[in-house]
Amino acid sequence: MIANTQRVLTDLHYLRSIGAYKTGVHRPTLSADDMIARKWLADQLRAIGHTSTIDGIANVYGRVPSDGPIVLAGSHIESQNHAGWLDGALGVVYALEAARVAKETGLSGGVDVIAFADEESHFSGASFLGSESFAGDVSEEVMDGSVCRSGRGRLRDLLADAGLAGRERLKIETDRYKAFFEAHIEQGQTLETEDLKIGVVTSIVAIWQYRITFKGIQNHAGTTKMAIRRDAGKALMGLWHRIEEEFPNICGPHSVWTVGHVSISPGQPSIIPGCAEMIVQFRDAEPATLDRLKAKLYELVREADDGPCAVTIEVMGESTPAHMSKALQSTLIDAARTHAPDKWLVMPSGAGHDAQVIAPLIPSAMMFVPSIGGISHHWTENTSDKDIALGAQVFVDAIGRVLSGSG
Amino acid sequence: MIANTQRVLTDLHYLRSIGAYKTGVHRPTLSADDMIARKWLADQLRAIGHTSTIDGIANVYGRVPSDGPIVLAGSHIESQNHAGWLDGALGVVYALEAARVAKETGLSGGVDVIAFADEESHFSGASFLGSESFAGDVSEEVMDGSVCRSGRGRLRDLLADAGLAGRERLKIETDRYKAFFEAHIEQGQTLETEDLKIGVVTSIVAIWQYRITFKGIQNHAGTTKMAIRRDAGKALMGLWHRIEEEFPNICGPHSVWTVGHVSISPGQPSIIPGCAEMIVQFRDAEPATLDRLKAKLYELVREADDGPCAVTIEVMGESTPAHMSKALQSTLIDAARTHAPDKWLVMPSGAGHDAQVIAPLIPSAMMFVPSIGGISHHWTENTSDKDIALGAQVFVDAIGRVLSGSG
Repeated sequence: MIANTQRVLTDLHYLRSIGAYKTGVHRPTLSADDMIARKWLADQLRAIGHTSTIDGIANVYGRVPSDGPIVLAGSHIESQNHAGWLDGALGVVYALEAARVAKETGLSGGVDVIAFADEESHFSGASFLGSESFAGDVSEEVMDGSVCRSGRGRLRDLLADAGLAGRERLKIETDRYKAFFEAHIEQGQTLETEDLKIGVVTSIVAIWQYRITFKGIQNHAGTTKMAIRRDAGKALMGLWHRIEEEFPNICGPHSVWTVGHVSISPGQPSIIPGCAEMIVQFRDAEPATLDRLKAKLYELVREADDGPCAVTIEVMGESTPAHMSKALQSTLIDAARTHAPDKWLVMPSGAGHDAQVIAPLIPSAMMFVPSIGGISHHWTENTSDKDIALGAQVFVDAIGRVLSGSG
Repeated sequence: MIANTQRVLTDLHYLRSIGAYKTGVHRPTLSADDMIARKWLADQLRAIGHTSTIDGIANVYGRVPSDGPIVLAGSHIESQNHAGWLDGALGVVYALEAARVAKETGLSGGVDVIAFADEESHFSGASFLGSESFAGDVSEEVMDGSVCRSGRGRLRDLLADAGLAGRERLKIETDRYKAFFEAHIEQGQTLETEDLKIGVVTSIVAIWQYRITFKGIQNHAGTTKMAIRRDAGKALMGLWHRIEEEFPNICGPHSVWTVGHVSISPGQPSIIPGCAEMIVQFRDAEPATLDRLKAKLYELVREADDGPCAVTIEVMGESTPAHMSKALQSTLIDAARTHAPDKWLVMPSGAGHDAQVIAPLIPSAMMFVPSIGGISHHWTENTSDKDIALGAQVFVDAIGRVLSGSG
């Protein structure tokens, strides 16, 4: 199948105008602009004969009226706050294009399209509310308890405001699909640095995250001698330093780790901190590497706990790496070889995506296009029109190969 | 002179009832309870024939009507928020007792008493507003600009509410005084640990304080490879670690240093910090040691700046150590030898006090009593009645020696 890349660019630029913010967009889940984008997508799907629905969690789902081989494709359509125009929207428009081309090509079967709600996690209760709901993993209790992390209110109330109260939440019919395909911007610099155009994702890394708490004794920074201090901030620094010393010796080639949150209490220059807290996160696709990093972290926490402060560690999350279908990786590679010879790379995804929720249910594939400067979650995020067009060509071709039985 | 220690304890317990909070007090500067305490003190001074005034910055000043040798004595009467009953009040009541005993003893001369306003720095504009005003160092512009750090409003408005608008701010008459004496709780554990009862202060340490800022590049914690990160948080940790490695090698025997404030921005577990900030403080009484610590800090900042993040350092404050009069230290030691033989120690003060503002103007002395567990700035702060009584005896005796010309 051959994509109409002008149509892809036209659609993406149209979506960019909905909730435009500088050169990016501001379309948080269930905002007025987000609902305009969802209705636009549902209309486009209806226009090519799909049965299209916005379900009880705001997933947009367009179903091709066919009994032939069916591929599911999509991504998410809402954005982070004041963020980029392509994060999510690119994968949705590529999927829409694949559905259009499949219909125009007159294949038996076709492409169902989905825009999952809230991949960007504006609401509490799950990391990927829309895809997890579609996978059957979100209970009514979670729906009841979910609230907007930016203070816009309860999920239930915002769904009602959007006219979605009481609607059924659709579940995936796993038997219906040969495959799930998601395209996305890379959000890193690997492709750009090596002047490559297509990333074929091998796996989506797991995120393991821990809250580490230090209890010392708060005291006067002038009258308390160094020898008797139990400084929680200094203890935190010591553990952090040990992590940065030890992790490089045991990590895998794609491992990343981050201390993104630190708090020192009471935070006054003349008071020795009595409490401190840090969040340590690491990501990898290899279970053995994740286990090794975790064991080392716990060893270092025990080592720190032997010092003057009490140190405790709490698991905040330990997700499972999601492996993409080997067969579908080959299909994407074949399509890339055709349209972007020598310009593709197999690589893990360091960011989370809806595909990691769908991958355990049906064979799944993910494809990246380059991000300029690796920037994402910011309104300056961008990809060149040429790279967007090339990505659409590879994506649509790969789905065509699956539908025609050649991929 | 011999103190009436029962009278001292009675007065301190009475003050404890004004703004009582658990076993401590809550009497921030210019609060209703603080003004009740100030008026009580002015009344006590009037009762022994002193001319007493609350001046235009709320300093309480009681002046003995005499031409003989005069000693100035006092401390502060307001408390930190929800803090201890003795911090400040002890030194004020000791001074009041010295004034009473001097009068009762029928000495020529006597003791002027002062309770400086806002030693606890509830208001912006100066570290020690009351004593700095008494020293002539607080301009009308500073008065105009000063605001409560806890949001109670402008200093001028709170002074007006307290009925002090337009009052003159008194200045020290340096020729009038043979000496200034201040007593205070130690706020540390040096006396308690060695089972000592009296600290004779040699000097009040200088506080040198620096804000250090790190600029990196904010990025995605999943898609940004370790090798290309410019993590401002990690850079901060690295410098902090170097400080803790190097300072012990070059510090003096009484040096203390503290990182009490750290902030990492944006502070999200999945975002590599783009900015970070820390405040580094150190204290010592020796100028050479202060200079050495500062030079090392600047050297380590330059070292850190060679890494992936830009590091800048800004001086927040570099105060001067205040040396207590050698002759008055001897007088305090003589009094301690009489009342607490072998239970006294000469020591620097790690905390700041009003005496450091007065010391450059007239010969000054400071005396400590033990703090139970070294606790201060907390409502559990305490000193035993026995130690309070012994301290009063030494303090009053020392002032008596100065007034009689024997000290």
